[in-house]
Order: sequence, then C-alpha cells, then structure tokens
Amino acid sequence: MKRVVILGSTGSIGRQALEVAAAFPDHLRVVGLAAAASDLFAEQLARWHPDVAALVDPEASRRAALASGRAVLAGPEGVTAVAVWPEADLILNAIVGFAGLAPTLAAIEAGKDVALANKEPIVAAGGLILAAAGRRGVRVFPVDSEPSAIFQLLGDRPAADVRRVILTASGGPFYGRPADELAGVTAAEALHHPTWRMGPKITVDSATLMNKGFEVIEASWFFDLPVDRIEVLIHRHSLVHALVELTDGVILAHLGPPDMRYPIQYALTYPTRRPAPWPGLDLAAAPPLEFCRPDSSGFGCLRLAYQAGRIGKSLPAVLSAADEVFVADFLGGRIGFGDIPRLLGDVAAGHEPFRIATMEDAVRADALGRQAALEATRTLAR
Amino acid sequence: MKRVVILGSTGSIGRQALEVAAAFPDHLRVVGLAAAASDLFAEQLARWHPDVAALVDPEASRRAALASGRAVLAGPEGVTAVAVWPEADLILNAIVGFAGLAPTLAAIEAGKDVALANKEPIVAAGGLILAAAGRRGVRVFPVDSEPSAIFQLLGDRPAADVRRVILTASGGPFYGRPADELAGVTAAEALHHPTWRMGPKITVDSATLMNKGFEVIEASWFFDLPVDRIEVLIHRHSLVHALVELTDGVILAHLGPPDMRYPIQYALTYPTRRPAPWPGLDLAAAPPLEFCRPDSSGFGCLRLAYQAGRIGKSLPAVLSAADEVFVADFLGGRIGFGDIPRLLGDVAAGHEPFRIATMEDAVRADALGRQAALEATRTLAR
Repeated sequence: MKRVVILGSTGSIGRQALEVAAAFPDHLRVVGLAAAASDLFAEQLARWHPDVAALVDPEASRRAALASGRAVLAGPEGVTAVAVWPEADLILNAIVGFAGLAPTLAAIEAGKDVALANKEPIVAAGGLILAAAGRRGVRVFPVDSEPSAIFQLLGDRPAADVRRVILTASGGPFYGRPADELAGVTAAEALHHPTWRMGPKITVDSATLMNKGFEVIEASWFFDLPVDRIEVLIHRHSLVHALVELTDGVILAHLGPPDMRYPIQYALTYPTRRPAPWPGLDLAAAPPLEFCRPDSSGFGCLRLAYQAGRIGKSLPAVLSAADEVFVADFLGGRIGFGDIPRLLGDVAAGHEPFRIATMEDAVRADALGRQAALEATRTLAR
Repeated sequence: MKRVVILGSTGSIGRQALEVAAAFPDHLRVVGLAAAASDLFAEQLARWHPDVAALVDPEASRRAALASGRAVLAGPEGVTAVAVWPEADLILNAIVGFAGLAPTLAAIEAGKDVALANKEPIVAAGGLILAAAGRRGVRVFPVDSEPSAIFQLLGDRPAADVRRVILTASGGPFYGRPADELAGVTAAEALHHPTWRMGPKITVDSATLMNKGFEVIEASWFFDLPVDRIEVLIHRHSLVHALVELTDGVILAHLGPPDMRYPIQYALTYPTRRPAPWPGLDLAAAPPLEFCRPDSSGFGCLRLAYQAGRIGKSLPAVLSAADEVFVADFLGGRIGFGDIPRLLGDVAAGHEPFRIATMEDAVRADALGRQAALEATRTLAR
C-alpha cells in the first residue's frame, strides 16, 4: 500500500489523481489533501478521510472544516504541513504556478518522493529542487504527459545512449492560424484545447506554446540535457507524447490516449505498472500519426523559452512568473492573446539574470518577473 | 574490440554485416567468415583476412582458397568449425533456412553469444536453442528488424509489465490486392519489396506474410509469450518496426529507417550503442504513420503460422521446411504464388505433431516437411 498526498486536489490534475486513487484501492491510500480554496474540498474530505488536510484560504478552510466535521489546516504553512506528513510515501504536487515550489522543497527535505505535475517550480528553480533531492536521496519526477513519457522511455538507460529528446506538442487550438488572426482570439477560444483535459493556466500556455517551452526547460533539468538537445515537433492528435533518439539513430516513442489519468497513474504506481481501467489506444483505429516542425512565426513563446533555457540562471523563473501574470490578464480580458509573447519578450529583454542558489533567490526572481509583468501591462493600458 | 564471426557472409544480411563491421574498425574485428558458395567469398577473404573461413560447397572452397591464397574449410563441418572458433565473442548467423540450426547449436555449445538473423532455426527448434543457451549461459538474440525492435523495447523490463507485443508488417508488394489477382503474380513481382533490401527467400515470405507469421513464432520463443499475445499490424512504410503494449496501456514504439544496417549494427555492438553512419529518420519529413489490421482473406500464411504457433511441437518446423521448398518452387516457376498458402495448409493438415526434444527430432520434422512439400508439388504437377 502506497500512502500518497495530493497537493492541489481540487484542480484538474488533483481531481484526476483522485480518480486514479479510486481505481486502485488496494494499492493507493490518500493520506493527505491540500488545495487553494474550493467547495469541492469538503466533498473530497468526506470521500477520502485523509489523515491531514489544508486549504490556503483561511475562510475556506473554516467552511470546509464545518462542512466535513474534520480538522482543516489553513494557509501556506498548512499546505506545507500536509506536504511533509510523516506517514506519506509520495507527494503528488499539482499546485499551479510558483506557489508549488515551497511545498516541493519542504517535501523533499522531509525525505519524500515528489511527483511534480506542474512545471513552474522546476522551471523557476530546477537546480535547487534537484540538488535537494540528491542530498536527501529522494526521487523527483514529472507527472505531465510529455515529460513523463520521456521519463518512461529513458528508464535507466545510460546517458551516452541518448542523442536527443523530442517532445510533441498538439499546437493547441490555434495552430496554423496566421499571427495577425491570433491577436484577437478570446479566452474561451484559447481554453478549448483540441485534445487534452487540463486546467486553464496550462491550457492557455498550450495555445501560446509557452507550455511546450517550459516543458523543454523542465526536461532539460529532469534529464540533464542542454535545451538544444530537446526538440519540439507538432503532432496534432496527441497520441505520441514524446520520443527519444538514441545514439545509433534508433527512435523510441511513447504512445497513449490523450488522457492525463495515464501519466498520473504511472506517477502514483511508479515504479510498478498496473492494468489501467481507462479506455486504451487502438492504433488500427487511430488517425495517421503526423509530425511537423513548429512554424516559429506565430509562436514567439517557444523561442523565448529556448533562449531562457540557454541562458538559465534567474531568466526562466522571471519568464515563468511573468507568464502567470499575463495568462491571468488574458483570461481576465485585460490583454490580448497576441500580447502574451510580445510582453514576455519585453520582460525577458529587461531582465539581468542572476544565479539561483537559494529559495530566496528564486522568490526574488519570481517577484521581479511579476513586477515587470505588472508594469508591462500598465504601460499597455495607458 | 569485439571479435565476430559472420555465417552466411555472401548473402544480403552477411554483406550488410560486413558494411557495419567496416564502419566500426575500432570496435569490431571479423575473425571468421562462412557461406554456401559464391565468388564474392574470395573477395571477402582478401578484404577481411579472417582467422578462419569455410564454404559449404567443396569445389567452391577450393576455388576460393586458390583465388585468395588462404585456407578455406569445406562442407557443413567447415562451417561448424567457423561457428565454434575459439577466438570469437559473437556469432552472427545469417545462414538462410534450416541449415542455420546446426551451427547455431554448435556455437551455443561452444559458449558463444549468437545473433540470429534468420528465423527458420528458432521457428523449427526454438525450445532446443533456448534451452542450450540457458544451460551454457550465453545470449541468443534476434537480428531481424522487427524482433530486434521488440528486443530493444523490452530491455530488462519485467515480464509482468508487458500486455502484448505488436509486430508491424509492410504487407509486401501485393498488400490490398484481391486473392484471385495474386494467383498469377510472378517471382519478379514478389521479389520487388516496397521498403526493405533483403534476400530472395525472406522477400517472397514477406509477400505471402509467412515471414511475419514466422516472426510471430520467433517472438513467442525469444520473449516467452504465447502467440496470441503477439499481434501483427500492417504499416506500409516500415518506419515503426514494432510496438510493446505495457500492462497499463502505455504503448512503446521502435522507429527507424527501413535499413537492415540499423538492427545489424545493434546486434554487433550490443549491449552498447554507437553513432550510426547510415542516413537517419526525420519524422517531420516522413509520411504519416498508419496502421491497420491485416486483411486475412488474402493472407492464409499468417493464419497458418498462428495455428502452428498455438499447437507448437514439430508443426512450426514442418511448416518452415515446406515453405522453403514451396518458395524455391515458386522462384523456379514450378508453382504459382497462390499455391504457397494452399499447399502449406495441406502439409500442415496432414502432419501429426510430435515433441522436439533433440536435434534429431528437429531434423526429422524438417525432413517430413520437405517430403510432404515435394509430394504436394508432385500432385499439383500431375
């Protein structure tokens, strides 16, 4: 029996993680839940009876405690208490954005394996996270479909066997549309992802290809590869999630339905595999598998991410923080879709990168990114 | 430096194996060569200076010895002497047909790892070969593209992780043509394989799908799976060579150009991988990857192979022996293309399977298969 904690349990990944846990009652026990704030949380407490629970929002935590008749810790400290729960074997961290970094580091320091569902912490502070994991002898691995596919393809393969890694991108809802058309697309259009069921932040990031850019940086940390040995290919159907090209030219591919429950299941049952109750992939009934290089003109975010990955230091953290602000602005109707890459480019160009050696450095980079983004939006509003 | 022996050096696989050896002069040394009979052999001796050499045909061996000024052993005993050469680390056995069995067993008994390029020995006597390899603690592994792809995909993966294996088939030159049209196709048409450069026997077997059927039986032995956990999908472009479906529904695929030098290189450099000098695969420039189930009506051979694989015992050996006869008859213009599956079905139906416990059993099954095939052709000629 593996005892798991799910941070961000009311989001898209968190809810699907609980679906997975429900499918493996003999193998997985949910011992901790944490979320930002949601009425769904009280229901989850009633269904799962975790040993420990927390909500970031104090008022919501009081409401959930009343509704469920159970103790619910409050605030970021509460979430951290769940992340370090002594009985837990694995922390699935699905907290969106930079807020996922502190509980990740806390869990690692407490000696827990961490499955990281969102890429912002590793993009912002990959060096810190992996150094801490190495020091504590715990495993940190990705949950998201494409990096998980790479993780599964690489296994214990020697680094010398790997020539490069290929991440596929569906291209999101706007792939192939000319840049001038993209300027005016709405949040509702951007949230309509062609293949994946995901939360709003990552869905917008998919539409700009920034999600794929962050994935390149994430893969660079997880698999210890320079970003220029990580290629992105557009693959509209999201059936091939990633490929690894070996030294001798052989290419290994990871295929499956575009269903997050697959990689979540792998993360929760790792290193074993268990029969999946989700609908499988019948290749004879699948559409032809096609790949093409991303058309760089409409997708400045991907180029920015490669630049940030090459320069490293605080630049990815700044880009990631600014992207959180711009995506929220776009979803709130305050900026246009076409503004996101442009403003991100301005923020990146204005930043003087410094080394991320401590959590404080990461927090400072994040704050600088947010501040620069707010200023950029303000300038735009004038 | 790995010291390799190539049995069947003048055939398609043998010649390509020497191309591979030529590409890795610092890693591979050719210490032995053997073939049936060919003028090319004297050239190979002059180029490679192997420590030991043999030709099956005594007259040809005298000619090659004269032409090269080197000792050339003669007869099946000569080939066996090359197969057990004390200095050799690996025997690549590319001898076509049942004739490959005896040197395979001899090499194993001499403690050599064996890379098996042709499937007839393993189809006819997989149990004998693997039992001997287990007893002697040597590795026997496939060279042919699709089984090699499975071998590479499985690696050291636990058997419990594997749900099933999928071999792809190009379908050969006649795929999609109605059965009545196939009856009259010529040897020249059958030898025109759409994607692979291979010898005549395997090329005709590809056209009948018998090659794929034998591959199913071969994979069943190598990977210890019942044939009904091995599926065949038609994939016209031969870019995806095989797939493995894991217990949790994840599918791993092995891709590469349809170029035998890739799997030959892997076999010769195994377990390491080395940069390949052959043209690679650019997925962005590749045609869409499509898969479909084989249309069983026109391809009776595949069905026969599954039946033989389920029944086991001497039936696969008999089928394989009869197929050697019928393919030679077809290439010699003595029977039609459509006769091959029909006559094979007759031979299989008339055989009473017995257990293959010794080399003598395998030889008897092979002889029975040939005899039944000769009788069937004679009946046809009347």
